[in-house]
Amino acid sequence: LSLCLFVCLRWSYSLSSRLGYSGTISAHCNLCLPGSSCSPASASRDLLLAAAYVLDAQYNRNVPFETSPQAIRLYYFYNHWTTQVATYFFICVDLALALFEEPALFPLPFLATSIAEILCLTAFFGRLIHFAKITPQMVFWKDTKNICIMVTIVLTLIDLIIYGSLESINVRSVRWSRALRPVFLINFPESRQIRRAFRSLRNTLPDILYVFLLFMFSMLMFSLMALKLFGDRGLKTAEGSPYFENILDIAFELYVLVTTANSPDIMMPAYDFNWWYSLYFIIYIIINTYIFMSVFLAVVYNNYRKHLKNEICKLAYLKRHKMTAAFNVLKVKVGTEFVVEEAQWRQLAQVVAPDMSSAHLELLLRISDEGQKGHVDKMNFLRLADLLNIQVVTINIKRHPLEAWMPRVYQSSASLLVQKMVRHRIFVWVFDVIILINAIFITLDEKNPLISYAEWLFLSLYIIEILLKLYTYEPRAYFERKQFWNWNKPKALRMLNDCVPFPAREYNSQQILDIVLILRILRLLRVIVSIRRFRVIVTTLINIGPAMLTFGGLVFVVYYVFAIVGMEVFHGKVRFFDPNFTAPDALVCGNPALQRSAFARGRYCKNNFNDLASAFTVLTELTVVWFLNFLLLADGFALVTHQAAKLYFILFHIVVVILIVNIFIAFVLEAFFVAYSLEKSEVETAIEKKIQELGVGIQEEELQDGKLTDHVDTKDRGLHGDDGDDKRKALKGLYCRIASKKYRTVDALLQRMFESEIAPEDEGPSLDEILNFSPSDICPKNPNFKNSA
Amino acid sequence: LSLCLFVCLRWSYSLSSRLGYSGTISAHCNLCLPGSSCSPASASRDLLLAAAYVLDAQYNRNVPFETSPQAIRLYYFYNHWTTQVATYFFICVDLALALFEEPALFPLPFLATSIAEILCLTAFFGRLIHFAKITPQMVFWKDTKNICIMVTIVLTLIDLIIYGSLESINVRSVRWSRALRPVFLINFPESRQIRRAFRSLRNTLPDILYVFLLFMFSMLMFSLMALKLFGDRGLKTAEGSPYFENILDIAFELYVLVTTANSPDIMMPAYDFNWWYSLYFIIYIIINTYIFMSVFLAVVYNNYRKHLKNEICKLAYLKRHKMTAAFNVLKVKVGTEFVVEEAQWRQLAQVVAPDMSSAHLELLLRISDEGQKGHVDKMNFLRLADLLNIQVVTINIKRHPLEAWMPRVYQSSASLLVQKMVRHRIFVWVFDVIILINAIFITLDEKNPLISYAEWLFLSLYIIEILLKLYTYEPRAYFERKQFWNWNKPKALRMLNDCVPFPAREYNSQQILDIVLILRILRLLRVIVSIRRFRVIVTTLINIGPAMLTFGGLVFVVYYVFAIVGMEVFHGKVRFFDPNFTAPDALVCGNPALQRSAFARGRYCKNNFNDLASAFTVLTELTVVWFLNFLLLADGFALVTHQAAKLYFILFHIVVVILIVNIFIAFVLEAFFVAYSLEKSEVETAIEKKIQELGVGIQEEELQDGKLTDHVDTKDRGLHGDDGDDKRKALKGLYCRIASKKYRTVDALLQRMFESEIAPEDEGPSLDEILNFSPSDICPKNPNFKNSA
Repeated sequence: LSLCLFVCLRWSYSLSSRLGYSGTISAHCNLCLPGSSCSPASASRDLLLAAAYVLDAQYNRNVPFETSPQAIRLYYFYNHWTTQVATYFFICVDLALALFEEPALFPLPFLATSIAEILCLTAFFGRLIHFAKITPQMVFWKDTKNICIMVTIVLTLIDLIIYGSLESINVRSVRWSRALRPVFLINFPESRQIRRAFRSLRNTLPDILYVFLLFMFSMLMFSLMALKLFGDRGLKTAEGSPYFENILDIAFELYVLVTTANSPDIMMPAYDFNWWYSLYFIIYIIINTYIFMSVFLAVVYNNYRKHLKNEICKLAYLKRHKMTAAFNVLKVKVGTEFVVEEAQWRQLAQVVAPDMSSAHLELLLRISDEGQKGHVDKMNFLRLADLLNIQVVTINIKRHPLEAWMPRVYQSSASLLVQKMVRHRIFVWVFDVIILINAIFITLDEKNPLISYAEWLFLSLYIIEILLKLYTYEPRAYFERKQFWNWNKPKALRMLNDCVPFPAREYNSQQILDIVLILRILRLLRVIVSIRRFRVIVTTLINIGPAMLTFGGLVFVVYYVFAIVGMEVFHGKVRFFDPNFTAPDALVCGNPALQRSAFARGRYCKNNFNDLASAFTVLTELTVVWFLNFLLLADGFALVTHQAAKLYFILFHIVVVILIVNIFIAFVLEAFFVAYSLEKSEVETAIEKKIQELGVGIQEEELQDGKLTDHVDTKDRGLHGDDGDDKRKALKGLYCRIASKKYRTVDALLQRMFESEIAPEDEGPSLDEILNFSPSDICPKNPNFKNSA
Repeated sequence: LSLCLFVCLRWSYSLSSRLGYSGTISAHCNLCLPGSSCSPASASRDLLLAAAYVLDAQYNRNVPFETSPQAIRLYYFYNHWTTQVATYFFICVDLALALFEEPALFPLPFLATSIAEILCLTAFFGRLIHFAKITPQMVFWKDTKNICIMVTIVLTLIDLIIYGSLESINVRSVRWSRALRPVFLINFPESRQIRRAFRSLRNTLPDILYVFLLFMFSMLMFSLMALKLFGDRGLKTAEGSPYFENILDIAFELYVLVTTANSPDIMMPAYDFNWWYSLYFIIYIIINTYIFMSVFLAVVYNNYRKHLKNEICKLAYLKRHKMTAAFNVLKVKVGTEFVVEEAQWRQLAQVVAPDMSSAHLELLLRISDEGQKGHVDKMNFLRLADLLNIQVVTINIKRHPLEAWMPRVYQSSASLLVQKMVRHRIFVWVFDVIILINAIFITLDEKNPLISYAEWLFLSLYIIEILLKLYTYEPRAYFERKQFWNWNKPKALRMLNDCVPFPAREYNSQQILDIVLILRILRLLRVIVSIRRFRVIVTTLINIGPAMLTFGGLVFVVYYVFAIVGMEVFHGKVRFFDPNFTAPDALVCGNPALQRSAFARGRYCKNNFNDLASAFTVLTELTVVWFLNFLLLADGFALVTHQAAKLYFILFHIVVVILIVNIFIAFVLEAFFVAYSLEKSEVETAIEKKIQELGVGIQEEELQDGKLTDHVDTKDRGLHGDDGDDKRKALKGLYCRIASKKYRTVDALLQRMFESEIAPEDEGPSLDEILNFSPSDICPKNPNFKNSA
């Protein structure tokens, strides 16, 4: 069958390529190359190819592509934002279909959802063919991603046909292919991060399996012991049911004990019978909860480090490889060495980053072409991708409008005193203290009119602060977006919040009021960020923020699969009734099997799998607010279906708690270790040095303390003072700095550390070798790098 | 006051030394030097000094001592096992006093306990003076350990006097000095491991404090938000009490939510009110439970690594330093280089390790004096301490007694077949399968007579197995203690257990029966250990076993302090009544304040602080079977005393969960990382090579598979075959191997890894510098070592 599918797919693929599908795309493509300079006239084919290589290196796309002009055009189109957005849109639609299919939150007829699904599948198939056109045949067919997508498409179609035909003769079957939908989310090359997280998961599996078997063995041994120790005692649980008399029940209870969800209830009967039996439970928890969970973490973390190192190696080599390829396309011979001409370099940079300001371009050129020889040598050229990755913010400093309008008043001694006062560190501190006092007031009773008036006082104080700052600093600089959101998020929130009149009680909508209240409390964040020791921790926490989205994706995929399965299995077994509805059904969640169960008593009826939203809620609760839920839910759903339902919950626990949470912890650990050994990378240092050399640098701290204009003034004078060269004049009035440390993620850091270890001449292994790197592979045994990785 | 104490202590110290206290010790000491060869006639003073250095290096004692003959004698006496045992005995007595003091488990009059305490204090003081006599004055007074002990002794005396005098006039006061007693356990130099764990704890504190403050801040911010969001809603908890109306209550509930003890009950009212409010709790738990707990682990682990590295450096340098000192004492000039004569070396080895067999000594000499030049050079001499630390087991192989008694029968083809069968791998497998089947039978109902008979069958099978093995292997080799306990622990247990007749039901004592049942299940362990992939994990788990005792010590100290404080605060507030006793008091744990509390309803009355044993039980339960207990206990004890009682439980949670558990996890992580990068250390390899070279080696695997005699036979013949030199003959019949991997602890491994990095010529920094190493110090920046540390 699979052979048949394969042949069929290959046929359709060649068919579609023959039918001019690629023709239309390439015709379209000429219009939409990134930037303005991408029409064939202004940019040569070589330049486009080199730019494609550089873009690949810059964004760490590790896909080799064909070098024919046609393929390059298609390549640009493939990576264009419109096609990427379209792909994501179809993925979202496909995943969202679960909301409209039975059991649905918003029911739609089967015909509508199936048509939508087929549309999505067509789009995925088109995307795949597009991808096949730009990659070499061999690479395409060796890539498991592509095979995965194809198989999933076919399986989904088969399922649709079976379900549809059964539906037409009114036989209800199971839409099992729905659980496969996240495959598209994982396997489209855009979702590189999620895929890496999954790879990390998959690579860890074999190692963790052995620990897990050992863990299961230890659990079963303890179950046997429990059976022998307590089984014949005739003990009763608090609910009066027999205690530890069935080996499977015991194993389940002991598994739950690992999560400590049923502790100490589970040990109470034995403990009451004889004090010494508590030793059994204590030893069990020490071994299985503390030691084994640590071992799981150790194994996961060890694997995480190992594979991270390997991935970083691979990426770094690929980047080097691509940049060398780009260099080889553009190189000309000057003297004894090959170089890239300055004009070529400029064109390339403009194709690669069309939005870059000319000042930024000038800066990069100055760094790359150190001796101003009019060309860039190979070593400097290879750095281009990294240079492009470093965000440099250029700030246009202008005079304060008030100074321009009424210079005499603004420069008067009283006004200068005010400005000096506002710029002083104490001014910031005073407002920090005010925020703290405000926080204390918030805790007090609001009904007291005095406190209510105090809030008005705080509000006016904040407004005064904003006005004073606007008076002192150039308003556009104050509001400038990048700066604003990089450091003043709390301030922004505060402003947003101050703009909302205080007695928001008059508002009708309760929800707006809630948001305002939260924002008011977020003011406090600003105080924390202003303390240097905290800033390191907060910075690292913020740095790992984006990567958390990756985990969000990972968790989403797992949830989706479990939710689909859960909906098929548990749909309609438990129903939620309005609490005011007093029918006897409401007390047992609409299912008589739950009579007198802890599930019904605990008012858990809302936790059901009747639609996608409910299923996600239940799974989220199981993950985040873990402990009590687990037992009650598993027991409850086992009552309404079958004892085997407990397996579903145990499996979920294993996947989420043992695998994902541990990978998350490993990730946080690694991020902090890297942050603790944080040093500026070579490339960043080069840029900063150059910025300082050109006299256009601004220290971050100065910006942060609000001394921007102050410092700029002196710098400005300095620039006026000496007769700088033309370049310096060109840069005048422009102040650059590296835009925050946001991009110093673990990955980027490690990659740069690793790169600085590869000798510039070393081109690494061949492309094929790189792509086939196995985890235990030839990644150079570099001690410094290994140390951090 | 402290100045006065200091002067007084110094005076008593000089007084006691003048009064001949040291005289009696040194007179005694001549008799009790370790080994038989330590009388002044047979061992010169130089030799004793060198031996002291070597012993210091071998056991990693990092105390410099004076080199006068008097001081060396005292030094030997100080480290003699009798004095060490005596010290531990007094520490135990001192700590155990809490069992007999009010509130007592076994009440004794105040006079008796106070006399016992004064006795202990005297012993501690004597020990301290003894220590002062052997260390240089400056070192002694700079050591905080000694100051700590002195201050604690004085404080205890003051407390005793105050309490005694108040007691005599019938005023009850608080014996606050009892919480200081663990100081003796920590600060006596014998408890090096616990002290290191404490140092680790202390060094981590500053770093963790900042994270903790941030954590508290985040918690308070969320409390504020909760107050604003839910405070005015008039929501009720499931018990009908107001929901989230007081900022302190909210903060406490949110702190408990971090432990997930009160989840999801705490969020249910808000969740029922509006679905969206669950977002608040989910965000809270993600930030404070998942992220902050990971950050705590990251900070603790980072510090643990850093300080471990530093300690290892310090120890390695000290060892090198001491061995060099020993070499300098014994060296003589031969040719151009300084060496130690073979005779001297032998004497030294005998003083240092009097129990060593002559074959072992010969082996070490052959390793140290490679060229058989009759002397040991400096480089090889420095390795002596490590060589002594490696346990080499020498096995005396003899013929099977049956072979000696009736060689014809034993060597007959039938008998040889049986022996071959028993030695075959399948024989082991068959019995592994039998054990598994037995395990399944255990789970089945025992009342069934068929199964009961099956047990008899299993028992006879096991007996047959033992008999067959005894027939095949030399009985003494089979029972040889070291081998026996190293690999055959399960077998030993099984034998022990098979010896107990099966229908143990006839025994009167229930407890013996329980133990037998557990032992029967432990048989299964053997199956696991026989699978190679599991063995790595199991070995690492067993390797970290001894170090867990260190954590046991750490936990004991923390428990003791908390138990003493808890007994003072909560004593008698909650009482436990026999469940059959139906007085109304029994339902409220003897305290009307607990009426209708969850504490009384949950039958928690047994969890009280009325004596040391109960207090320890409660604290153990809080640590191990954490989750539900925490809230109920804290609430219950807050009801019977004061709301501030919750602080006690929160503090305990912070110390145990945030600090100790994280250090424990860091320790397990590090142990596994080291195990994964496990390579045989240089020194061990040298010994193994030599053993193989001499043809007396036995592979561990062979031993394990029970092929011992088999292999030995061929080896034996090989030895007979070629005409070995005299040494080889001397070693004939003796088979050596390195005794298990038990000593490959993290510490030992890292230390050896580090040592192999120091150049042999490098003597490291001076002694003073080493002793004053600060954590961020000059430990050489060695990439390989850093990588593993």
